[in-house]
Amino acid sequence: MKLVPLGDRVVIKQLEAEETTKSGIVLPTQAKEKPQQAEVVAVGPGGLVDGKEVQMQVKVGDKVIYSKYAGTEVKLQDEELIVVRQNDILAIVE
Amino acid sequence: MKLVPLGDRVVIKQLEAEETTKSGIVLPTQAKEKPQQAEVVAVGPGGLVDGKEVQMQVKVGDKVIYSKYAGTEVKLQDEELIVVRQNDILAIVE
Amino acid sequence: MKLVPLGDRVVIKQLEAEETTKSGIVLPTQAKEKPQQAEVVAVGPGGLVDGKEVQMQVKVGDKVIYSKYAGTEVKLQDEELIVVRQNDILAIVE
Amino acid sequence: MKLVPLGDRVVIKQLEAEETTKSGIVLPTQAKEKPQQAEVVAVGPGGLVDGKEVQMQVKVGDKVIYSKYAGTEVKLQDEELIVVRQNDILAIVE
Amino acid sequence: MKLVPLGDRVVIKQLEAEETTKSGIVLPTQAKEKPQQAEVVAVGPGGLVDGKEVQMQVKVGDKVIYSKYAGTEVKLQDEELIVVRQNDILAIVE
Amino acid sequence: MKLVPLGDRVVIKQLEAEETTKSGIVLPTQAKEKPQQAEVVAVGPGGLVDGKEVQMQVKVGDKVIYSKYAGTEVKLQDEELIVVRQNDILAIVE
Amino acid sequence: MKLVPLGDRVVIKQLEAEETTKSGIVLPTQAKEKPQQAEVVAVGPGGLVDGKEVQMQVKVGDKVIYSKYAGTEVKLQDEELIVVRQNDILAIVE
Repeated sequence: MKLVPLGDRVVIKQLEAEETTKSGIVLPTQAKEKPQQAEVVAVGPGGLVDGKEVQMQVKVGDKVIYSKYAGTEVKLQDEELIVVRQNDILAIVE
Repeated sequence: MKLVPLGDRVVIKQLEAEETTKSGIVLPTQAKEKPQQAEVVAVGPGGLVDGKEVQMQVKVGDKVIYSKYAGTEVKLQDEELIVVRQNDILAIVE
Repeated sequence: MKLVPLGDRVVIKQLEAEETTKSGIVLPTQAKEKPQQAEVVAVGPGGLVDGKEVQMQVKVGDKVIYSKYAGTEVKLQDEELIVVRQNDILAIVE
Repeated sequence: MKLVPLGDRVVIKQLEAEETTKSGIVLPTQAKEKPQQAEVVAVGPGGLVDGKEVQMQVKVGDKVIYSKYAGTEVKLQDEELIVVRQNDILAIVE
Repeated sequence: MKLVPLGDRVVIKQLEAEETTKSGIVLPTQAKEKPQQAEVVAVGPGGLVDGKEVQMQVKVGDKVIYSKYAGTEVKLQDEELIVVRQNDILAIVE
Repeated sequence: MKLVPLGDRVVIKQLEAEETTKSGIVLPTQAKEKPQQAEVVAVGPGGLVDGKEVQMQVKVGDKVIYSKYAGTEVKLQDEELIVVRQNDILAIVE
Repeated sequence: MKLVPLGDRVVIKQLEAEETTKSGIVLPTQAKEKPQQAEVVAVGPGGLVDGKEVQMQVKVGDKVIYSKYAGTEVKLQDEELIVVRQNDILAIVE
């Protein structure tokens, strides 16, 4: 069972926050803000969206920063996913 | 008696929540959030909608995830249906 | 005396709620929600509306489902009518 | 002294409410809701309005139904007029 | 010192309310609502405004009715002027 | 150190309010409303802004009236500047 | 690890407020408003954004003034960055 997004939608999955400080110390995840990093799980075909041509610029596996509060949370087989529009993806993390 | 949607409208019917955990245990539906999964019951012809060309990308029988709170609930012969715009459909579940 | 709607307007008249359950029992109309079914009474010519080409897809006599709260109520010779834009009509009931 | 409306504006004048029931009894106007019927007094030239081509579809003398709360009330020589956009006129009463 | 409006702006100056009843009696201006009549003092060049072609339809000296609350009040050498967009001018009074 | 505005932005600097009455008496500036007159300090290149072609119509040194509350205040080397879009400039004062 | 912005996004990093008065005295940063100056860290490719062609006008290393409250704060390896649209950048500081 998988999600096939329509139009310019992108399915992403939030990454666990295993933040490492510059000195290399790994902080436990409790009491930290929800990270905005996510991994791209599925990408819509783009094309005509709201009468405007959209070309998809992310691909499955990309790590991305997305706009807080954007998107719709979806639970599929106990996996928590978020469906956003590509426009809500701010940047790819390389 | 059936609904023939206009423009980019899609008639959907919410799916019963018979959620199965990964280990295969079926949970009773009580006390669970309303699922956002629905089945497509009827699809409008698309074409010029608000002056923009829309091509329909879902078809009758598709299982879809739709945007919470979107659409208008309609009761037809004791059947509860929801009329949404195709744009409110986030993804097809395959 | 009749209404000739302009542009993409449609004049509709709410249908009486004589809901029949699947088993055929007719429920009295009291204590029921206002139905959203209406019959089309007059249809505007369409054409350029807000700078966009609109083609009319409903015709006089069609039974339609319309968007709750949409439109303007008009009383003409003791008859209660509603003027909606075609875009507020969700589906035709066949 | 007269008003020459610009663009897609239409000057209308509310009609007195002398409502006749189907049986022919004329009701006194007190305690009735303000009617939304008006007579067209002057019509703008149409043309490019907000960058969109508008063709005027009403003419002086037409009786029209207009959108409640729309328009700007103007008092000219003790005459109360309303200036609306043509788009706020729902239908012509024939 | 004078104002040269940009784009589709029009500089207007409110007219004194020396309202004459039909019978010819001049009412004193106290306790009256601010009139919406104004005289056009300066007219912008029109042209491309917000990406849309605007042609100016009023000229200096025109008496106009304008939309209540529209525009920005400007005080220039003790003269109170209002800068409105042409779109806020409803009609010319002839 | 100077500001080079992007797109249709204009950097302006509010003018001191040394208002002279018609009779020639200079009023002290205390207890007066903030004037909306400003001098243009820098002008963006115009061009494609939000997908629309914008031609700049003000130039450095112009005295302008601008829309109250518009723009962003910026402090650069103890100088208080305001960055507005050209569209927020109502008129040039000549 | 670095951010590669999409579309017309720009990654900026707020500059420390080491404000020097004209006379050359460096003020301590406490009790001062957050400056709106930032340095450009990464620039998106521009191109079709919301169906409109956008050309990028800032480059990495530019010092810019940006619109207060605009953008999304992102923390990447203990570095606080802000992702804004190019449209939220008001001017380049030279």
